Amino acid sequence: MPTRRTLTACFIVFYQCFITLSANALETVEQWGLFEIALPGPADGNPFIDVAIAAEFTHGDATVTVPGFYDGDGIYRIRFMPDRRGEWRYVTQSNRVALVGRTGLLRVVAPGAGNHGPVRVHNVHHFAYADGTPYRPLGTTAYTWTHRTEAIEAQTLATLAGSPFNKIRMAVLPQDHGIAYMPPPRFPFEGSPPRDWDTTRFNPDFFRHLETRIGQLRDIGVEADLILFHPYGKTWELHALDAETDDRYVRYVVARLAAYRNVWWSLANEYDFVRTKTEDDWDRLFRVVRDADPYDHLRSIHNGNRVYNHAEPWVTHVSMQNGPAVEEAGRAELLRHVYRKPVIIDEARYEGNFMRWANLSGQEMVHRFWSGTVAGIYVGHGEFFHAPNNVTWLGQGGELKGESPPRLAFLRNVMEDGPAAGIDPIDRWETADIGGQPGEYYLLYFGRRAPTKWTFRLPRYRLTDGMEFSVEILDTWNMTVTPVDGVFVTRTRPPYDFQPGSVDERLTDERDGRSVALPGRPGIALRIRHVGGTAPVPPNDPPIEP
Amino acid sequence: MPTRRTLTACFIVFYQCFITLSANALETVEQWGLFEIALPGPADGNPFIDVAIAAEFTHGDATVTVPGFYDGDGIYRIRFMPDRRGEWRYVTQSNRVALVGRTGLLRVVAPGAGNHGPVRVHNVHHFAYADGTPYRPLGTTAYTWTHRTEAIEAQTLATLAGSPFNKIRMAVLPQDHGIAYMPPPRFPFEGSPPRDWDTTRFNPDFFRHLETRIGQLRDIGVEADLILFHPYGKTWELHALDAETDDRYVRYVVARLAAYRNVWWSLANEYDFVRTKTEDDWDRLFRVVRDADPYDHLRSIHNGNRVYNHAEPWVTHVSMQNGPAVEEAGRAELLRHVYRKPVIIDEARYEGNFMRWANLSGQEMVHRFWSGTVAGIYVGHGEFFHAPNNVTWLGQGGELKGESPPRLAFLRNVMEDGPAAGIDPIDRWETADIGGQPGEYYLLYFGRRAPTKWTFRLPRYRLTDGMEFSVEILDTWNMTVTPVDGVFVTRTRPPYDFQPGSVDERLTDERDGRSVALPGRPGIALRIRHVGGTAPVPPNDPPIEP
Repeated sequence: MPTRRTLTACFIVFYQCFITLSANALETVEQWGLFEIALPGPADGNPFIDVAIAAEFTHGDATVTVPGFYDGDGIYRIRFMPDRRGEWRYVTQSNRVALVGRTGLLRVVAPGAGNHGPVRVHNVHHFAYADGTPYRPLGTTAYTWTHRTEAIEAQTLATLAGSPFNKIRMAVLPQDHGIAYMPPPRFPFEGSPPRDWDTTRFNPDFFRHLETRIGQLRDIGVEADLILFHPYGKTWELHALDAETDDRYVRYVVARLAAYRNVWWSLANEYDFVRTKTEDDWDRLFRVVRDADPYDHLRSIHNGNRVYNHAEPWVTHVSMQNGPAVEEAGRAELLRHVYRKPVIIDEARYEGNFMRWANLSGQEMVHRFWSGTVAGIYVGHGEFFHAPNNVTWLGQGGELKGESPPRLAFLRNVMEDGPAAGIDPIDRWETADIGGQPGEYYLLYFGRRAPTKWTFRLPRYRLTDGMEFSVEILDTWNMTVTPVDGVFVTRTRPPYDFQPGSVDERLTDERDGRSVALPGRPGIALRIRHVGGTAPVPPNDPPIEP
Repeated sequence: MPTRRTLTACFIVFYQCFITLSANALETVEQWGLFEIALPGPADGNPFIDVAIAAEFTHGDATVTVPGFYDGDGIYRIRFMPDRRGEWRYVTQSNRVALVGRTGLLRVVAPGAGNHGPVRVHNVHHFAYADGTPYRPLGTTAYTWTHRTEAIEAQTLATLAGSPFNKIRMAVLPQDHGIAYMPPPRFPFEGSPPRDWDTTRFNPDFFRHLETRIGQLRDIGVEADLILFHPYGKTWELHALDAETDDRYVRYVVARLAAYRNVWWSLANEYDFVRTKTEDDWDRLFRVVRDADPYDHLRSIHNGNRVYNHAEPWVTHVSMQNGPAVEEAGRAELLRHVYRKPVIIDEARYEGNFMRWANLSGQEMVHRFWSGTVAGIYVGHGEFFHAPNNVTWLGQGGELKGESPPRLAFLRNVMEDGPAAGIDPIDRWETADIGGQPGEYYLLYFGRRAPTKWTFRLPRYRLTDGMEFSVEILDTWNMTVTPVDGVFVTRTRPPYDFQPGSVDERLTDERDGRSVALPGRPGIALRIRHVGGTAPVPPNDPPIEP
């Protein structure tokens, strides 16, 4: 590209005229690790506004331009998450001579244990880490856990480390619920909010603290679903900054945090309750995030009463508050069908003893997760139990009190053990209660029903005679897996055709009509796997749902 | 606009040099009626390709440019549907001298009985005619009823006139199902399909026949939901015309038909089964229709397995095949919530005795209509019963055999009698089984449940103490309305607040705890109307769902 070449040529001239070569030795960083350049520079004026800094990283034909940021005390930083191994070179760019043309080399080595890279959309409706390892989101929410005391924050991290949760929804900015007994220890801007602060100057301490927590989440395998805006900072007028300030804040956050591989961008919590912004503002903010982030981290936005238009191309996946959507699998599946993107109902009401948005029993929370799972979407957890110290998981973090987390750990094991391609609806036109991969793996969930018997019968797609299946009974509440004796052998029905009178149920039976005795309780699932006999019929191309 | 002025000036010169003034007397047409200009012109070459003709209609500041079309035998026509009363002038434009600068006047008078103008989107999720009269779609489908014998087509019209249906999904182009015993009498292009026809020349007879039928539908109050493409014309290669031919066909159809006020554009039936077209093709075709239609008739597209992105701005309302979506109200409501447009599930499976897409009982068909209705969306009918003469309603029209139509007539009466603003969900977060307008009108549908008692209790939004309501029991299958004696008087519960322990069910009770005895059958609904006492609380602004 001529423009880039011209630019590079300019920088070479600059560098020859003004710059001493950076004395850094060759540094080593792991793939998807965080490499940081720190450079002293001008501290006069307002560096947050006046100084632009970036670096261009190159590896063979690949070039990544990475915005940097001012970290206070005359120090500028550029953080880079390399996506391939081998030797990378970089050269800095700036509107200040002192920060132009600093060059360096880094060697990127294989990722360490537990580092699979950032999470991406995979197979249309699912997720995988950059190295191809499937990622099955099983998230929770603790909005303001990073705005607490050291003790509570440490407790939150310990709780998460011992929990099934691999994602957490968390707000970058503080909220004003309950500040009388627990005021936020730090604010994002210099000075005291809202009258005596300067929204053109960031408070590096605030962000350093957040970064520490994000790094700790990364180290325990938890994705940080970072909420950039919310309606609950009115005390400090955080909901009513002007567009220029909003955009600068977003770019600063992205410059600081995008090199953390476990970051997701959630433009807002309950975006439509931020009455000071229009849908156009949100569209613009999405584009600001997208354009500022060199790594294209996942992007979404969470609604109150009005759902954002998730069909927009800058939305990578659906993040939605909608309790009714996961009351049964058929509703959940509709959303997936409509959006053709991964869907996460990350607020399905909360387990707890509070108002109607936080009054689910543990059983109902677990039921909603299973309903979503078999429908091929994902569900999020949260809980709100009154606590004498005013620390509730949903707001402040701390410890979990609900009954659902161990059952969600059981579900996570089932998900991790499931097909690599993810759980997809098997026959959406007939039933959303069976997910899996046709011919290979089925997860059937009976929900609130409590049958005492199930006769082996599966949607016909990819099935033929003589396929052998194992069946296990999963008790989603008591967390038991009970294998059923023997194998189940398929026998197909007459094929679907257009003849009048043709029976068209598109089902396949068991050869001997075998059935499975069930415990007659709600919350029972079946896991059915192809274990031998005839191979599955090859899939249609283009794929046609049966 | 200077461009238009310059153009007009040119035409005036043209007219002075070449043209004799049109000798037409002042013609009269009703508002939203069809005014037609017929002009003799060149018949040499290929007039369908070579000749462009349009007319500019003006009324005060309003100008409408209306494309015309070649109707064979050396005749060109321009059809105009005036949207306001008074005197309109027109002048023709063309790339042929003989068709340039023809001028005329027309007087537009009040619409006649039954003429409410074209249907538009109204109140986000609903429809109304241009004169403001609410339009509640209750449609059916007979794909190829205009490709039959005169006798069958007359029977179809008679059936429709005696039915509750006020819309019909119908294909412009013939289909090849069953052509062995009933070949289409006309084709859209000159010659014999597919090898010996000329797709650059239209067959005016084909379109004149279609227009006659559309006019007859208009006269019995039925909207023509015209399907422009479908996957079922492979015998004649109608699915595989090139983009230029597709676009020309669409423009020709729109030029001929857009002046019929009862026309809707459905880009396709089961668009995703047309394997020869991409999503980009459909996007383009939508834009061709939108740009060609001076009246902005309703536009949508009907899916097979893959839903089109109905969030696109050129889609005015959702037309969707999705049986599961209306099995219960909660699913239906989700679609409305997501799209923020009117939703019509116009293929919810069909009543009949055929394959699984056409095996609903009459009861189940009626159930699906009611589920959609209380959720604030609309549902479509169709039926497929084997017939000795191979005439089934879904394909060929003829007569209706199912049990649902009289019950749908009952439903239509309920809809027409409902609130002018339409039926909206009353409390989507808690239940989708109650639709209406809060404080004024409620329609509660019990679906497949068969309760014997209902205790008066409504979602709290807009309710306060001392409001008086009437209650009627509607049997959706037996078509009875049974008023319940007396009035029901509201008593509110303690208000919602953020205090721990606060009860938050957001419900309002009856003062004396009155309940209603129900018949213990499925398919029962309640109609509850505010009839006196205290007035409803004013709505929130901006509106917040409760």
